[in-house]
Order: sequence, then structure tokens, then C-alpha cells
Amino acid sequence: MVQVNGNYLRLKAGYLFPEIARRVKAFSEANPGAPIIRLGIGDVTEPLPQACREAMKAAVDEMGTHEGFRGYGPEQGYLWLREAIAQHDFQARGCNVSAEEIFVSDGSKCDSANILDILGPDNRIAVTDPVYPVYVDTNVMAGRTGDADETGRYGGLTYLPISAANAFTAQIPSEKVDLIYLCFPNNPTGAVATKEQLQAWVDYARANGALILFDAAYEAFIQDPSLPHSIYEIEGARACAIEFRSFSKNAGFTGTRCALTVVPRGLMGTAAGGEQVELWALWNRRQSTKFNGVSYIVQRGAEAVYSPEGQAQVKALIAFYMENAAIIRRELRGAGLQVFGGEQAPYVWVKTPAGLDSWGFFDRLLSQAHVVGTPGSGFGAAGEGYFRLSAFNSRANVEEAMRRIRALPGMGD
Amino acid sequence: MVQVNGNYLRLKAGYLFPEIARRVKAFSEANPGAPIIRLGIGDVTEPLPQACREAMKAAVDEMGTHEGFRGYGPEQGYLWLREAIAQHDFQARGCNVSAEEIFVSDGSKCDSANILDILGPDNRIAVTDPVYPVYVDTNVMAGRTGDADETGRYGGLTYLPISAANAFTAQIPSEKVDLIYLCFPNNPTGAVATKEQLQAWVDYARANGALILFDAAYEAFIQDPSLPHSIYEIEGARACAIEFRSFSKNAGFTGTRCALTVVPRGLMGTAAGGEQVELWALWNRRQSTKFNGVSYIVQRGAEAVYSPEGQAQVKALIAFYMENAAIIRRELRGAGLQVFGGEQAPYVWVKTPAGLDSWGFFDRLLSQAHVVGTPGSGFGAAGEGYFRLSAFNSRANVEEAMRRIRALPGMGD
Repeated sequence: MVQVNGNYLRLKAGYLFPEIARRVKAFSEANPGAPIIRLGIGDVTEPLPQACREAMKAAVDEMGTHEGFRGYGPEQGYLWLREAIAQHDFQARGCNVSAEEIFVSDGSKCDSANILDILGPDNRIAVTDPVYPVYVDTNVMAGRTGDADETGRYGGLTYLPISAANAFTAQIPSEKVDLIYLCFPNNPTGAVATKEQLQAWVDYARANGALILFDAAYEAFIQDPSLPHSIYEIEGARACAIEFRSFSKNAGFTGTRCALTVVPRGLMGTAAGGEQVELWALWNRRQSTKFNGVSYIVQRGAEAVYSPEGQAQVKALIAFYMENAAIIRRELRGAGLQVFGGEQAPYVWVKTPAGLDSWGFFDRLLSQAHVVGTPGSGFGAAGEGYFRLSAFNSRANVEEAMRRIRALPGMGD
Repeated sequence: MVQVNGNYLRLKAGYLFPEIARRVKAFSEANPGAPIIRLGIGDVTEPLPQACREAMKAAVDEMGTHEGFRGYGPEQGYLWLREAIAQHDFQARGCNVSAEEIFVSDGSKCDSANILDILGPDNRIAVTDPVYPVYVDTNVMAGRTGDADETGRYGGLTYLPISAANAFTAQIPSEKVDLIYLCFPNNPTGAVATKEQLQAWVDYARANGALILFDAAYEAFIQDPSLPHSIYEIEGARACAIEFRSFSKNAGFTGTRCALTVVPRGLMGTAAGGEQVELWALWNRRQSTKFNGVSYIVQRGAEAVYSPEGQAQVKALIAFYMENAAIIRRELRGAGLQVFGGEQAPYVWVKTPAGLDSWGFFDRLLSQAHVVGTPGSGFGAAGEGYFRLSAFNSRANVEEAMRRIRALPGMGD
């Protein structure tokens, strides 16, 4: 009989978001009238920017003409989009990144998963704890880990705890690793990394021949001008880092789908026989063979993000969500809770009140305030005792959610 | 240093379409005025159906409102689209396929590549020769083959020749294989399979515990009502087959991007320890973890394919391309060439004239008629001596290309 990939059987069954959905559903069925407010999954809620919509409608019209019709596009994305990205997102910040090094895709989740296709089976892999679950799960599925232990940690991975104890800074590992996932501004903690901190990572990677997979999906939320938006703002990063970016959280493309990955020319890995191989060439081959590019219509929408109108509209979206985050921070503090993040990121990371673990706090907020968040323990063992609230919702919903939480007795420690 | 996936190094460098592009570019540069007509890559040329365009523009407008905005959708596709597909493409033809078994994606190329994620490393794999190169290359990249020999055949694969000698019917292998790629109507030969032929494949698969990967991307071009459009028209197929479908070639979505894969519930594979595992659950997990679903806007466009207007517009597109195919068949025969396919498929498969191999014929057509086709040998060793012409072009270009070919001396054997 046809053989399956048995590595999938190592995956822990209870994935975080399905479990949240199950508990919310059970609560809703038992309490049909309860007005639930969701601050859980990190999904945007505001309408798509007008500049993007106009560009997409114009593109649809083009597709209705013989002259304007577009069939298969370049798998790497249209050059006009890659050039706009290289110029605005990188060159304008002093990063030496060219259009050729930009690969447009349908999602950062996809890219951060698919990148494993071009990497070998024997790399030692480091992830933070807590961590965006996709980094771990895709390694499990690709057979790059052992089994999970009772805390949910998989054998073979190096976990780097981030918590209040280390100011939410991932510590550079004492052992040698080959592949490191970093996400700043961080999902789920909302923490950021300074240039000095990233420089230490780049220096470590270069000294150890390691590859950094840098997830910058939330860079648009950075408010402090001294903080880096891209790993390529760090000297030496081109020799050791791949960066993932997305239009999901800045321009609200979670349902429209466009993202990008930067693979610098000259970034090398090694094959089993010892040959040096350029990762750009492997990723280019991977994308050409296994991907057909992003919809022309969507790429035109993404391009409009870089127009003056698009830039102003994205800025307004970010400001809106960051005001939500500020309200969440202020009100939760007012309720006596200890909060982190939410200043350079759309996520507020809350210490659960004494006596409640992550799921306990989840159940209390759901049942008593009808507010849905995300248990920190769902992002890893070191997330236990924390809780993630997202700033992605309407102002009215955020304010109402905070009113309800503040009305709960005994929230402070 | 970080280790790469060394299997990529087994890939033969000269991929078919880049080599074609290189020769066309060299010819164009040497002959700047030559009016080249491209009947090579299988990319559609006619405008997107009006029903699809209207639906997409309405969806873009929805995304501009708070009420209509859509963020992350179901990774498997919206239920309204999955239901429309299940009903129109399957249930209407008597196939027992439910909406839950439909996985909407951004491309059949992606799906037919990604499906290897859920399969194990030790399956014995059969492909036809000639074959759509992606089936082979993705197996090479996943380490499921050995090295290529001098004819371009990779060790470890079972090649099933299809040629005039066996009426372009893939012969059921005498040995036991675990995984079989079938594509009908066939790319590149334009051949079709009868119900009886597919029944023989299903019977073989069931008897051997094999999985059939059935690529039906060209089913809309079938004219003969006795021919099956889906593998699920064959008794027993639900227990042994996955089917790939696309909106690329029926509704002209090559640049818009939407496709689907059918994985029947209850279709089983085996893990290394001998456990039976449902492939639906693995694919569902794969898509949930590594994919974020297709753009809402594009899914609304795909849904419109099933409206009465959409159906009429798609029918007109198919009729247009099939008239092109009929012209190509008639004119090439008139030129004395032996032609196959092009009756139930948009591809005409031409026997090259005596004394010319596939690339020789390519060079002759390019230099003397300024017509670009695809050398059959690029699809596999058994494609040598054949040549693919695609019916995807304007009527004027097809007619002009045929005029030029007929004007060449000595085309017949």
C-alpha cells in the first residue's frame, strides 16, 4: 500500500486555534445570547485600503481585454512589484536588497514552511519558546524533529525561552545550531529586538555558519525610529539571513494574500558532499517548479501599497490598530494586570493573574467577560502563565472588551 | 554551515522552457524583425470571462466595507465554492464527491508538487514518458529518485512509454508500483483515456494498494460524451485516487490562480509502522499548516464559473480554442505531417518529419516559419521525434502560423 509521511503522526493533535474554536463553540451553544468579542487570532478587521482596491479593479478590467490579459506570470512575481518592494521596504532604509532577491508569494506562513524544502535533514534547529507554531509544526512534518514530550516540546529542537525573566529577549544559544527562527516584532509576545541584539545574532550566525530565518511580518507596527525593521539593516546579515515579509498585517491582506521572501545572492549553504550551494538558486528553482506566482490582480493591489495614497492609507491602518493596542495596555494595567508588548506590535502579552494558568485565564475571560484571547501556553511551554490579546478589532469592540475585563473582580495580583 | 537539500543538485540544469526561451531570444536578437508566433507554453490568451470579472470586482468592493471585509478564510477554501465545485464538476456527472473532499488551492502545479509532502520516501513511483515535467522534478527534489542517466531518466522511477506504437495509452506496469501519475486529457500528447482504460488502472491500483494521482486539468476540452472527465466516474476510484483540477485552462485563470484537489474520505495509506492513515486528514493538516487559502476575491471569481453566464462563457472559450486545434490538425495534415491529439485536448502532438528530431524540428520552425512550439523530447525520452503545438492563441495567429508551416517545403515524410 502507498506509504504516507509518518512524521505527521508525531504532530500533537490539539492544535491551538482549533482548541480555542472548540471551547468558544461550546460556550456559545451553552450561552446563545452572549456577545462574544474576539481578540484571539491575529486577523485584521479594517477594510482594504482604497488604493489597493482601485488597483485591483483596474487589473480585473485589464484582464477583460486582449491587450491587457495576463496569463502565467513570473513565478517570482512581476518585476514592477519586486522593484517597488526592494526600493521602498529595503533600499529606502539603507538595506542592500535588489529586486532580483525578492520572491513574491501568497503568504509568509507558506514561505516560512516551504523554505524547509531547500534545507537538509540534519540541521540543528533553534526556535524561541513561546513561538509561532508553524515554525515547529513544519519541522515536525518534514521529519526534522523527534517526538514531543509531555510539555509539548519536540526532541531534536533547541528551545530558547523568552519571558519576563530575560526581558523577552531570545538568548543566543550556548551550543552550535545551524538554523534559527527569529520573529521581531514578535508574535506572540509583542517584543522587539534592537540593532545591537540582532547584530549579536548575525555575529553568532556568521561565526557558526548558521542561517537565520527572520520573520518581519509585523515590522510596520514599529513606532520607535531606532529599531530595525529588517535584518538587512544589520551588518553581515546578507551572508546569513533570509527574511519573510507580508502585506497581511500592514495593508490588511490576510484574505487577499500576498507576501514576499528575501533571499540574498551569495548566501550559501552546504550539500552533504561538502559543496557550497547558493540558497537563492535553490529557492528560485523551488518556486519555479512548485509555485505559479501570485494572482496578477493581487500583485497590482500590493503594488498600490507603495503609492503615496497607499502609504498614507496603510499608515492610518497601523495607527488605528496601535491606538487599540494602547487602549488594551492602559485598561489592563488599570485592572491591575501586568502587560508587555503592544508598543511596537499589535499584540499585548499579559501575565495571567495569580492562581490562573493560560487556559484558566482563557476560560475565565470567555465565561465572565465573553472575550476570546489566546493562551500563551499554546505557543510553547514557556508561554504558560501568559495570554495574548490582539489589537485587531473595531474601536468599539476593543473598548467594550476592556470595560468588561475591568469590571471583573480580582484581576490584579 | 547550514545544510541544504542536496537532492536539488540531481536536477538536470537545462529545464525545457528556459531552453526554449534561450533559443527564441537568440533567434530574435539575430533577426529583430521576425514576427514570432508562440504556440509553445500552454498558456491561455483570451480575456477572462465577464462573469468572473464582475464577481471579482464585486468582491473587491465588499473588501472595502466593514461588513464585507474578509480576513483569513478557511485554508481549504470557502464552503460556497467547494459546494459549487462538488455539485457541478462531480455530482452532476454522477461522482460521489462531497464539498468536504474539495481543497481549493492556488494551482494544480502546486498541488501536484505539494502532495508529496504527505507521502513517504519509499514508494515506487510510475510516470508516463513523455510526461509533464513537474511530476518528475518534484520527486527528484524530494529525494524520491536516483540520479538521471544520459537520456534524462532518473533512477528509481518506473517510466511508462506512450507513443504511436501503443496508441498513446499508458500501459499498466508489469511490476508493482505504489504511486502512479496519470494525466488525461494528456499533456503533452493530447491523448485521452476511455472509461475502460481508467477502470483497468483503478483495478490495478486497488489490487496493488497503489495511489493514482489523476491530473484532470484539461477535462473541459473533452468533446466526446463517452469519455470520463473525472477518475471518480470509475468504480472503486474513491479508494485509490486523488484528483487535481484547475480553473486555468477552462476559465483562463493562468494569471488569476485557482485550482482544486479532491481527496476522498476513507482513502488510506500506510505508515512505516503499518498503521493505516487517512490521506484526507494528512492533506487537511498539510494545507492548514502550510497554506492560507486562496484570495477571497479570486474564489468569488472561480465561483462565478458555475453561474449560467459563467458556464456559457467558459463553453465559448473552450469552443474557440478547440476550433484553433482543429485548424492546426487540418493544416498540418495538409502539410503532410502526422498529427495526434487536438480532438479532446488543446494540444496537438506532431510526428517530426523524417530526418529531424524534436529540437531539429523546433529550430526549423523557429528559423523558417518563426513559429515556436515545444520539442517532445523535453517531456521525456519517449517524446523524441514528436513536437507539441498548443491551440492557445488568437485565431489570426494560429491561421498565420499554419500558413507559414504549409509554405515550408518537404514537411511530409
